[in-house]
This record gives sequence, C-alpha cells and structure tokens, in this order.
Amino acid sequence: MWLSLPANTDFSIHNLPFGVFHTGDNRPRAGIAIGDHIVDLVAAAESGLFGKARFFKKIFLQPTLNEFIGLGKPVTNRIRRKVQDWLRLPEAPANAARLLTDRKSAVMLMPLQIPNYTDFYSSIEHATNVGSMFRPDNPLLPNWRWLPVGYHGRASSIVASGTPIRRPKGQIVPKGQETPVFAASQQLDFELEMAFVIGKNSTLGEPIPIDRADEYIFGLMLFNDWSARDIQRWEYVPLGPFLGKNFGSTVSPWIVPLEALKPFRVKGPQQKPAPLEYLQQTGKQQYDIALEVSLTPGPKGSETVISRSNTKYLYWSMAQQLAHHTVNGCNVQIGDLMASGTISGPTPGSYGSLLELSWGGKNPLQLAGGIQRTFLEDGDTLTLRAAAEKDGVRIGFGEVSGQITA
Amino acid sequence: MWLSLPANTDFSIHNLPFGVFHTGDNRPRAGIAIGDHIVDLVAAAESGLFGKARFFKKIFLQPTLNEFIGLGKPVTNRIRRKVQDWLRLPEAPANAARLLTDRKSAVMLMPLQIPNYTDFYSSIEHATNVGSMFRPDNPLLPNWRWLPVGYHGRASSIVASGTPIRRPKGQIVPKGQETPVFAASQQLDFELEMAFVIGKNSTLGEPIPIDRADEYIFGLMLFNDWSARDIQRWEYVPLGPFLGKNFGSTVSPWIVPLEALKPFRVKGPQQKPAPLEYLQQTGKQQYDIALEVSLTPGPKGSETVISRSNTKYLYWSMAQQLAHHTVNGCNVQIGDLMASGTISGPTPGSYGSLLELSWGGKNPLQLAGGIQRTFLEDGDTLTLRAAAEKDGVRIGFGEVSGQITA
Repeated sequence: MWLSLPANTDFSIHNLPFGVFHTGDNRPRAGIAIGDHIVDLVAAAESGLFGKARFFKKIFLQPTLNEFIGLGKPVTNRIRRKVQDWLRLPEAPANAARLLTDRKSAVMLMPLQIPNYTDFYSSIEHATNVGSMFRPDNPLLPNWRWLPVGYHGRASSIVASGTPIRRPKGQIVPKGQETPVFAASQQLDFELEMAFVIGKNSTLGEPIPIDRADEYIFGLMLFNDWSARDIQRWEYVPLGPFLGKNFGSTVSPWIVPLEALKPFRVKGPQQKPAPLEYLQQTGKQQYDIALEVSLTPGPKGSETVISRSNTKYLYWSMAQQLAHHTVNGCNVQIGDLMASGTISGPTPGSYGSLLELSWGGKNPLQLAGGIQRTFLEDGDTLTLRAAAEKDGVRIGFGEVSGQITA
Repeated sequence: MWLSLPANTDFSIHNLPFGVFHTGDNRPRAGIAIGDHIVDLVAAAESGLFGKARFFKKIFLQPTLNEFIGLGKPVTNRIRRKVQDWLRLPEAPANAARLLTDRKSAVMLMPLQIPNYTDFYSSIEHATNVGSMFRPDNPLLPNWRWLPVGYHGRASSIVASGTPIRRPKGQIVPKGQETPVFAASQQLDFELEMAFVIGKNSTLGEPIPIDRADEYIFGLMLFNDWSARDIQRWEYVPLGPFLGKNFGSTVSPWIVPLEALKPFRVKGPQQKPAPLEYLQQTGKQQYDIALEVSLTPGPKGSETVISRSNTKYLYWSMAQQLAHHTVNGCNVQIGDLMASGTISGPTPGSYGSLLELSWGGKNPLQLAGGIQRTFLEDGDTLTLRAAAEKDGVRIGFGEVSGQITA
C-alpha cells in the first residue's frame, strides 16, 4: 500500500467506513476513512474510479448517505472494493492528491437522514443493574429473556459527534418529595451503545426472517444515548422513556460496513430459556468489538477511562432484534437506526452508564486530578471509542464525543 | 358560491383541507377538498391563481405536502384564501372544469412524509379505564396529572385511510399461563385519536413556549392507532408499547388547517393540580369536534356506530403537549405527527377503543344483524369520522377506515 497509515489507526484498509464531510465550504460530500485521510468519493467518482462518473458524483454529493445505501450491497460493496484496490496499487497513483483529504481539515457531518430510530435493551447486565435500582423487588422482568425489549426513540435529535449537548430541563421529583418541580437535570448520564443502520426497505406486513437479517443491515455506528435519569424516573411509567432521552443522542461520524466486521463474529451468551422459533439462530451472532468510555472534566481536566466493555456481552443479537421488530409486520426503511441499549459487561469496570458506574450516585467515580463524578457536570466531555482487533487487523469507529453545556 | 355542495358535507367552504391525490395516473398532486370535489392545486397554479405559477406547480407536484407546509402559514393561508375567493366568484369561472376533480375519481394518498411520530395519552377517562384493567390497584399513575404522558411511536407504518391492516403476530401469554407463545393477535383493537401536524422546524436545545405553540401547528388529522392488546400487555413493561402498536396506524387523507378550527375552540376540563408554569395557559384550549366510530363486520355486514366521543374531553391540550415535548430542548420537524392518545368521554358510549367498550372483552358489543364483537375479526372494517359543527358551519375530516386482513 502506497499510503502510510499511523500505527493502530481505527481506519485500516480492512475497515473503509463511510461518512459525510465538508472542508470548510459547507459542501457535504461522501468519503471513506483511511488512516489520517479521507478518500473523497466525489473526486473519486469524477476521476472515473467507479465508472458512471456523473451518476456516482451526484450520489456522493447528497447531504446524507441514504441514497447511496439504497443502491444495495452489491453496489456499496463494489465501491469499497474499488477504493481498496486503488489504495493497494503498487505505487501512488497520479490522482492520489486529488482524491485524498486530510482528516484534520474535514468537518464530519451527520451521515444519515434517519427515518426511524429504535432503541433496544439487550444487555442482561444493564437490564439487571438498572432494574435493581428502579425496581429493587423485580429487577429483570418476566418478558426480558423471551424477547429483545425495545422502544421507539426520537430521530430528530440524533446529532453528529462533537455537537454540544445542552443540559435538559424538565419535571423532577426532589428526593423525599412526592410532587415534581421544574429544574435542570441533576442526573445527566451517557449510555454506551452500538447501533445498526438499515440498508434495505422492507414491506409493511411482511416480517424479516432471522436468517435474512444481514441483508437488511448496512453497517454499524457507535452510539451515545444521553439520558437524564431524574426526568426519566418520574415520566417513564407506563409508556416508557420520553423527555429523559429525546434531548439528544450522538453517533459516530463513520458507518462501519457489516462486511468489515465479519471476521470478528463470536458466539453470544447462551440464551435460557431457548427463544421462540422466530428468534432462533445458530452460529456466531455477536461481535467482538472492544468499547471504551472516557470522561474529561471541564473546562481543562485530563481524560480518564471510566469503562471498558464489549459488544460480545449483548444477550440479544442484531438479527434477533430485527426479526423481532418486524415479526408483527412493522416495516423498516433505509437509514433507520436500531441501537443496542446500554452495553454493560459483567464487572463494575465494564458498566455502560454512570447510573451503573456510580450505582445510582452512591459511589462517586474517581477521575484523574482528584476529581469526582456521580453524574455529568457542565463542561464535561464524554467520549466513546470502539474497535475490533484480531491477527493484526483493526477496525475502529472513530470517536463519539459530546460536551455538556448549561 | 357557484359550486353546489351536498348538504352536510365535511368539506364546506370554511374548511378547505389539504391532501394529496392521483386520478389513476400515479401522478401525486396536492388538492383542497370542497364538497364532492377536489380543487387540483397543480391546475390552479398553472392557471395563475396564486402567482409564481412555476414555483407553485413544482411544490404541488411533490408526493407529500411537507415542502408546501414548510413555506409557512402566511403562504399556506394565502393559498387557502385564494381558493376560497375563487370558489366565491359570482359565477363559475372558465377554468372551473380544469381545476375541479370529482372526489370519487381520486385516489387519496398519504399526504405527509412523517419524520417523527409521537403519541400522547391525554384523555383522563381513557387513562383511568385502561389503568383499571392493566393495573387495578393503581389506575391513574402519580405523574399523569402533572404532565402529558407521551411516547415515541413508529412513523414508517402510518398509512392512508383505506389501506388494509394485516393482523399482527407476536408473543402472547395465553390466559392462565406464564410464558408466551407465538400467535396471531386475538385482541386487535382500534384507538380513536386526533393528531396535529407540525408546520415549522424548531431548534434543538430550544423549547417552544406554550403561548407560541399555535405557530408550530399546521393542522389536524383524524388518527387510528391500531393496537394489539395481547401483544402490548406482555411487552410494554418497562419501556412502553412497541410491537403492540407499530404494525400500523391510519390517518385521514385530509389535513384540516388549524385556522379553520378556530371558531370551535372551547375551554378544556379544569386541571387539578394546577400545572407547572411552562404548562399553564388561559382561554379556550380544546376543540369541540364530534367524533364517531363505526364497525362494519366482514365480509358483508351492516355498519354500526359503536362510539361517539369529542376532542373537547381531552385533559391536556395540543399546546401543552407541544410545550412539554420540547421543554427539554427536543426539536420538532415539519411533518411531525403528534397524536392525542385515545379520546374517551365520560360515558361508556363514548369510549375510544374496544378494550374499553367491551371492558377487556367481558362485555361483547351488540352490532346490527345480531352480530357480537369484543375485538376486531378478520374482514371487519373500522371507520372513524370527525366534524366540528356550529351556526351552520361544518368542518369535517373525511373518513379514516381500514379493513382487517388475516
């Protein structure tokens, strides 16, 4: 490969994730990340890399990837392969400078128009931890092991990494009282999640069988489902989370294609009881993707890693989530996002939210510089990172970060 | 007025709701309903009724009204007034035949692309009735009188009136058992709701104050939130309804502009306790719109009216719903749909769902022809109707109907 990549880059030649960026001109364009660079897909189309130059130029000048994704996996995979072949040329091609953009000079944008967003609740450790705090008598509800519990979230407030998150206000019941006051949330939290992007429309009324789920999954994005626990606690019975969640969620700028993650498939946890037939699957259904959460206290604190988890801990797989979501005939649309729910592991150091890490605020976290945190304070920056790594191959997602503002 | 309208039409000259239709050519176009006709807005634009003919022709040839609505109320209200003036000409204009389409020859389409759909739970009678059945000890939860409880629903499966609804399958716990089986829902229900359409984008992080809510509400649509009670009962704790709802919802083909409904404003129920400041409002905040539900058993039964209700029973107003929805900074987008939740009145004949009308299946409804129903059976057609009427002015919504298929 003629382009040199930094050691340990998220964006190896095996990854080639898709995103949308501009370089200060506010002209969004699609790109593929490679090391410290982006392959500008508009320039690549213009230079004839994919054939049908005008067609692909138009596709890659869209403000989101939806139209591109809608071309289907044979096309999107071919584009990735063409870029891979180009990067693997024996020496730097003449169009190298024209096609490559320095990642540092690029502003990453929200790469999707998301028609529908669903959030699952698929980590048994997270469900048990939260259940113990919210419903001590009844932590894991009877339906949890039978179906991937999920709910619809708000698509409008999903933003790209780097977007500041304003601390939400809302109805909160002060400790020891029974009626609410209107106040800024004092229990602002993150949730470490992985989301998948739907790459193909399905038909209303027609379920997606579990063994065809992969056809509908274009790729994965790292996801932070910001949560205001005090608002959530008061509002969520009986219809579920609403204002405690919908003030903002942050996604990674890059969508890692499902194909890039195939080598990292592993068996998931054993499911007991055995799921009903439409949720049964064999083989490796989870992914071994290491996850890391770090917190940088504002305004000038040092970063501390506060959690290390892994997507392989998830009890329900993406295929099970999708088969369940559509088993009643609900249709999916290109660009839909389906998030895993908080990914907590079995040990306290692997919990995927401050609610769990500080155990409801009882055990403050110790950060670098002698700073403590139970929940997020104004000025804090929370960053998620994720990468699959094996046999010298590394597939990363880039950072998902957001700073809290008052 | 030179055009004669049928007595008691939903579509009087005071109404002039917007919709999207085609006439067998699959070429969607915007229209305004008037009596038994539709004013074809593409033809009206071409004939110069609005000025800027090319601009408006393009707008009205869009497959949905989103772009038109996005022009803002000064423009959308002007278009309505121009059509009103045209209909009030002293005699039939030369372009009358060109601009009018017989409603019978039109296929009505889904008039919106819905970026986000929210469902509230704003009828105290409905919340109390359902609460008594699902949680006998605890029918109205402590938060209910403090905030308009709501949750995010599924936008992808909202369909135009007339679209058949396939009976959903899913996980159901048979009576007397504790674990689920996979089966077709045996408790398929409707929900009588009114929804409002967002006409203006708001900014993430910035709440919409309650006294500015009307600026953001373009108009109203009648709404049927089909529900599978047996699926819902097993899945809904703790994250709310999911597959019990998202297999389909049906909207009226016409959007009645908020302005047309101003004369029908009435005071809503007294709210106790007084809401928190951001939810406080004065004046007439509900609408007196009579609602009617009828059931036609398949395949060839006669129609029976099974409920008569009214939007004026709603406890929480649309302005309160919108102020609450955005008080945490959640943004709204043009075309968003926000439904009221089931609108039940105080008497059994005014309940807005079969769950309530048959009291959980215990009291079957008696229909014409000696037929009984607890929940919907295959072949049944459920139809909602709504109209505001006062001083000889009638503003209707058209029918919202759907037939159940196996």
